[in-house]
Amino acid sequence: MTGSLTITGLGPGDAALITPEVSLALAVATDIFGYGPYVARVPAREGLVLHASDNRQELQRATEAMRLAAEGRRVVIVSSGDPGVFAMAAAVFEALEASPQWHGLAIRVLPGVTAMLAAAARAGAPLGHDFCAINLSDNLKSWPVIEQRLRLAAEADFAIALYNPRSASRPEGFGRALDILKHAGCGDRIMILAHAVTTAEERIESLPLRDASPEMADMRTLVIVGNSSTRRVGRWIYAPRGVS
Amino acid sequence: MTGSLTITGLGPGDAALITPEVSLALAVATDIFGYGPYVARVPAREGLVLHASDNRQELQRATEAMRLAAEGRRVVIVSSGDPGVFAMAAAVFEALEASPQWHGLAIRVLPGVTAMLAAAARAGAPLGHDFCAINLSDNLKSWPVIEQRLRLAAEADFAIALYNPRSASRPEGFGRALDILKHAGCGDRIMILAHAVTTAEERIESLPLRDASPEMADMRTLVIVGNSSTRRVGRWIYAPRGVS
Repeated sequence: MTGSLTITGLGPGDAALITPEVSLALAVATDIFGYGPYVARVPAREGLVLHASDNRQELQRATEAMRLAAEGRRVVIVSSGDPGVFAMAAAVFEALEASPQWHGLAIRVLPGVTAMLAAAARAGAPLGHDFCAINLSDNLKSWPVIEQRLRLAAEADFAIALYNPRSASRPEGFGRALDILKHAGCGDRIMILAHAVTTAEERIESLPLRDASPEMADMRTLVIVGNSSTRRVGRWIYAPRGVS
Repeated sequence: MTGSLTITGLGPGDAALITPEVSLALAVATDIFGYGPYVARVPAREGLVLHASDNRQELQRATEAMRLAAEGRRVVIVSSGDPGVFAMAAAVFEALEASPQWHGLAIRVLPGVTAMLAAAARAGAPLGHDFCAINLSDNLKSWPVIEQRLRLAAEADFAIALYNPRSASRPEGFGRALDILKHAGCGDRIMILAHAVTTAEERIESLPLRDASPEMADMRTLVIVGNSSTRRVGRWIYAPRGVS
């Protein structure tokens, strides 16, 4: 058996959003690596070895996955959403850089539906005009970098998708982001908070940014801040295609 | 029969990237609306009415689709990629705003794999850190807006996905974007040009931005400009997760 490493995205939660390409990769895998709750989404099957690990262990997970692939296993790494957006693909290439002996490995990255696309679809079309995506987790970057990006994104009048807005270990980031955006003149903008999108616990809220409070978000929330033209029609929220 | 309007994304080209949710919507539809080449991707079936139209007719297409849905048809609008990213969903809500009689219509938006995610997956993980997406088409916005967004995106050190970089009717936009990004200090950044990604004509190129020329892109090209830390490992390109 020739080993391989396939880095996949399971979409935001609903199995009907897993691409057939990813389902096929899962069906022929020998080993699945990933954060526990994502590994738990893979259908169990005799002979399939599940390697669930903690959320903070991306590099160790990537290295172990490469080691097994190099031994000839068909290894699949699972992320939520898309593997290339604030997920495992970058961690694998970081680990690969540190491991020249594995540069010849057969690696594939299979895209998926990232959370902001699913959240946007539920709300309407808030990403129908230019937009950006910012990870509010400051595990791997300093807060001043996040702060500057928020200010520039507001100035550019991008719609802004905020990933990982808040966790128990970093409770203050989302509140700081709200303050920065208010001071940058975004208080009137429509904000969408999509909680556990496409799962049974899904809950979508929207309100003017100035009325949002930090405890409205947690790590299962994807936040979209509309641009200055974003508006409502009936129950829908969308960004008009044209601006002057 | 109760009518409905479902706005779907077919992904970038490969049928293995169409979500099961979208495939189901196509399977129960009575009418398909969309730009000709996208409608042509829907499997033909007896009784299914195909309404192909020209690329510039988004609002008329949306209005006609709503009219048929209001009459009781199960109407599906198809876009390439994700319907919410520079595609039909925003046009439908614009048309809905002008048509209060249809505000009660049963509308759903089903997300898809947008081109930048598929292009990023082919290249590695260039969107693994904060990024933005800018539509270079100036049909619906002025060039100074595009120019300012490019400058601010460079200053924010976002990876930058450029949609619709170049067409026969707008041959000069991509060249202007390259000039702006060079002057903004992005000459050394890695640029990825993904042509017809996930189709039989797929071609992925990468080079330093300063060496790119305008004729390298056309309307089937998705361009990703890396951030200042984006680098290569073997044949892969990725954005490291951490920055200072």
